[in-house]
Amino acid sequence: MRPWRSLGRRTLIDTSPWLVAGDETWELPDGRVVEHFNWVRTHDWVAIAALTTTGTLVLERCFKPGNGRVTLVLPAGALDEHETPEVAARRELLEETGFASEDWTSLGSYRLDPNYGLSTGHLFLARGARQVAEPDGRDLEEIELVELSLPDALAAARAGEIMTIGSVACLALAALALAP
Amino acid sequence: MRPWRSLGRRTLIDTSPWLVAGDETWELPDGRVVEHFNWVRTHDWVAIAALTTTGTLVLERCFKPGNGRVTLVLPAGALDEHETPEVAARRELLEETGFASEDWTSLGSYRLDPNYGLSTGHLFLARGARQVAEPDGRDLEEIELVELSLPDALAAARAGEIMTIGSVACLALAALALAP
Repeated sequence: MRPWRSLGRRTLIDTSPWLVAGDETWELPDGRVVEHFNWVRTHDWVAIAALTTTGTLVLERCFKPGNGRVTLVLPAGALDEHETPEVAARRELLEETGFASEDWTSLGSYRLDPNYGLSTGHLFLARGARQVAEPDGRDLEEIELVELSLPDALAAARAGEIMTIGSVACLALAALALAP
Repeated sequence: MRPWRSLGRRTLIDTSPWLVAGDETWELPDGRVVEHFNWVRTHDWVAIAALTTTGTLVLERCFKPGNGRVTLVLPAGALDEHETPEVAARRELLEETGFASEDWTSLGSYRLDPNYGLSTGHLFLARGARQVAEPDGRDLEEIELVELSLPDALAAARAGEIMTIGSVACLALAALALAP
């Protein structure tokens, strides 16, 4: 199966480093040409399912503009420039929650949208996490730390209390990785 | 915990129904004002983990512009206007794969990005799926149907062959729902 071939792209909005978007002209393998196919680029990010030494999962209760209300999310954030995903995951977990772990497992890297592209999220499981510092409180959001058992976190996702797909993908993959 | 308060939003690009984006001014609970916070709106969508009567999962091998290469995805697509998520899921599964099921379970609805918003994806598990028609072949993409066992599909996700976060979230939640 052949990929499509790009015949060129335009940038229609550029608020780097936050959001760049435009459209692209594609030639399909059968020769058809599709114009004005939108693309969007935002920054790549990490999300972390951090399991504490007592077996609870570390979550954050906060307001997120894209969610429109106060919900639970997993610790997550944008990669800094030149940062590897695991370094970013360790930094975000420490900054947002004060937790650290020495036992990291990649749960994979995934594209946010198959049509627009957008960003790549790198998902991690951190086992044996323990609180070694206070959260640094530098994010825009007020963050309340919440610890839930894994079954309770999965129930919170089903009930709509965890409504971010990156958080729920990371949580579900972590639960599968931890299943006996 | 209080939500942020919107002080107004601008539209900077509008290619409806595909992509609308702009920025918003937010007042934080502590009185700080954040300007130029980007938002993006695309169409809502469904994704389906369809398990056949022989226990395999129905996947599609195709090129997606946002992925940039040929990969595996779960059957998925945009909601038509006035369509409920389950009606859209039944339609997309039938159109893209020719499979139908009478046993549908919601795996939840999730926002694609906690900052930009973007879209809501409605995830479903369809059990006892059987092929009742040919795929309609009307999508832009050339689609090759692939059936994998659930463990093989999870291995494909870990190996980067399923790289769309909506597909992997739906797959992982389905695997948890089906676990004994």
